[in-house]
Amino acid sequence: MASSEFDLIYRYLASYGAGPMVRLGVGDDAAVLQVPSGHELLVSTDTQVEGRHFPADTFPEYIATRAVGAAASDLAAMAATPLAMTLALTLPEPDELWMHGFSQGLARAVSATGLPLVGGDLTRGPLALSVTVLGYAPVGRCLTRGGASVGEHVCVTGTLGDAAAGLALLQGQNEALRELPDTWQEMLESRFYRPTARFEWVPWLQDNATACIDVSDGLLADVNHLASASGIGCRINVEQLPLSPALAAAESGVSRADALKWALTGGDDYELVFTVPVDIDLPPGATVIGQTFDGDGVDCPGFDGHSHGYDHFGGREHD
Amino acid sequence: MASSEFDLIYRYLASYGAGPMVRLGVGDDAAVLQVPSGHELLVSTDTQVEGRHFPADTFPEYIATRAVGAAASDLAAMAATPLAMTLALTLPEPDELWMHGFSQGLARAVSATGLPLVGGDLTRGPLALSVTVLGYAPVGRCLTRGGASVGEHVCVTGTLGDAAAGLALLQGQNEALRELPDTWQEMLESRFYRPTARFEWVPWLQDNATACIDVSDGLLADVNHLASASGIGCRINVEQLPLSPALAAAESGVSRADALKWALTGGDDYELVFTVPVDIDLPPGATVIGQTFDGDGVDCPGFDGHSHGYDHFGGREHD
Repeated sequence: MASSEFDLIYRYLASYGAGPMVRLGVGDDAAVLQVPSGHELLVSTDTQVEGRHFPADTFPEYIATRAVGAAASDLAAMAATPLAMTLALTLPEPDELWMHGFSQGLARAVSATGLPLVGGDLTRGPLALSVTVLGYAPVGRCLTRGGASVGEHVCVTGTLGDAAAGLALLQGQNEALRELPDTWQEMLESRFYRPTARFEWVPWLQDNATACIDVSDGLLADVNHLASASGIGCRINVEQLPLSPALAAAESGVSRADALKWALTGGDDYELVFTVPVDIDLPPGATVIGQTFDGDGVDCPGFDGHSHGYDHFGGREHD
Repeated sequence: MASSEFDLIYRYLASYGAGPMVRLGVGDDAAVLQVPSGHELLVSTDTQVEGRHFPADTFPEYIATRAVGAAASDLAAMAATPLAMTLALTLPEPDELWMHGFSQGLARAVSATGLPLVGGDLTRGPLALSVTVLGYAPVGRCLTRGGASVGEHVCVTGTLGDAAAGLALLQGQNEALRELPDTWQEMLESRFYRPTARFEWVPWLQDNATACIDVSDGLLADVNHLASASGIGCRINVEQLPLSPALAAAESGVSRADALKWALTGGDDYELVFTVPVDIDLPPGATVIGQTFDGDGVDCPGFDGHSHGYDHFGGREHD
């Protein structure tokens, strides 16, 4: 393949660098961005390594959409508005076909997240991606994990467990999933391959929520992070967990035990868990799933699975 | 090793996250930073992979100082002031000793660059680092590669070729280098292992320079990038190249041919090449090395080496 690094970068990536806040995108020593006055900058970095964060045979489109979606979700979890991203891509070999597929996923992810690609570094080595996302929020208005108080509602956007079910389906681990209608199977796989950062919740969260985190390690593990940072305990009520029809409809053959396991401990949902005072009415699309209490840790009556976080040097990795 | 990812991150990295512009450092879904009003944000990402950007047996301290120094240099090349950095670190195995050495290098690099570490991601995989650096500059005052005009001086900070000589010394490729006094040998190796971003030049460059790039691929390759972006040609005069005593003093046994080769084509110097109108007086520490002309490419009379840039999928890699 005759393309130099610069050819590759420019051909595939630079065209995604446009955006109203981008004064200078890919191509110089650094990108130049505007941060609106009265706003703070938010930044987060997220790495995905082949064989650890995604299977070795993952389509390059999905590698892009998963990595960008997961990274962008950290901005949504802070109630930040998307500004831009940079991508460090390490590839074993130059491969036109792979780059073509990857660039299609990247284009989709840029469009879905509103994060123009403004910088990149392409190096040769074992397949891995580091995505750094930049966002902004009015000064003092972004959310952390540490703002929850005793006596608040614990809530979550969307539905839980779909991404873990999607992974189980892809890995052929569950017979019932294979019997689901095609549209449901596609939805589950898409939840795993194309996670969606919930930026549509940012304005409401800025006005109403007290703390927030995204569901990346699994609901119980992430609620535990929030509880720990806030110095409170959280009770999660399994009967209140929002499940998609694929996991919970009467005509779905998926067992209740599997659905709860995925919803409580499966990672990759990238929904937002947040706390609000109990007198706040939730908009459609969010669900109260528990309460904060004076204590510590996560209490989930009726579920006896593990609730600790994943260890990047032990089990399967998430962020 | 019992440490979880979070233990490792917090123990080694979080203490370097302080800084006057950092409202929230490592530990939540994203860091929160202040960008001074009237300023633009600059961002650049730089990846280094073991075996390609540094030898497999490199001390972990040096892996940190090289990666951070190289990334920070991209900010200096844009005449930006350092704000903060994030670090994505991929490690094959958890290793307390390795992390201890790495953290020492990181502490040194944070101190040397003025870039507090505000975010990170630690994953398991082949050894690699992605450093994303953030800086700021008054709106419209940062420098690009594209601002040079015909009839200007081409200048460079510091001395050239030391890092390439340091690498040759480390690899035992040059007998004359081994005969140098210890202090000179140490200086050369340090230029390779501990590159210094030239932030001290930022105020002067903002006021006087028309274009700028850092010397990472090698002087001729980087001047070629500047010439191409500016739509002009550059003539480099070999007799004007600033060489350190180690490479040029009468008592140094290093050949003139080797010194010029390293100065013109060796990467990793991380000095700044910039253009200025000819009536501008240079402060001490910078040297006029050539002129711009109406044309294209780089003309270097008296040197017949290669002047093209490195290809990340071909030769040795740089950024």
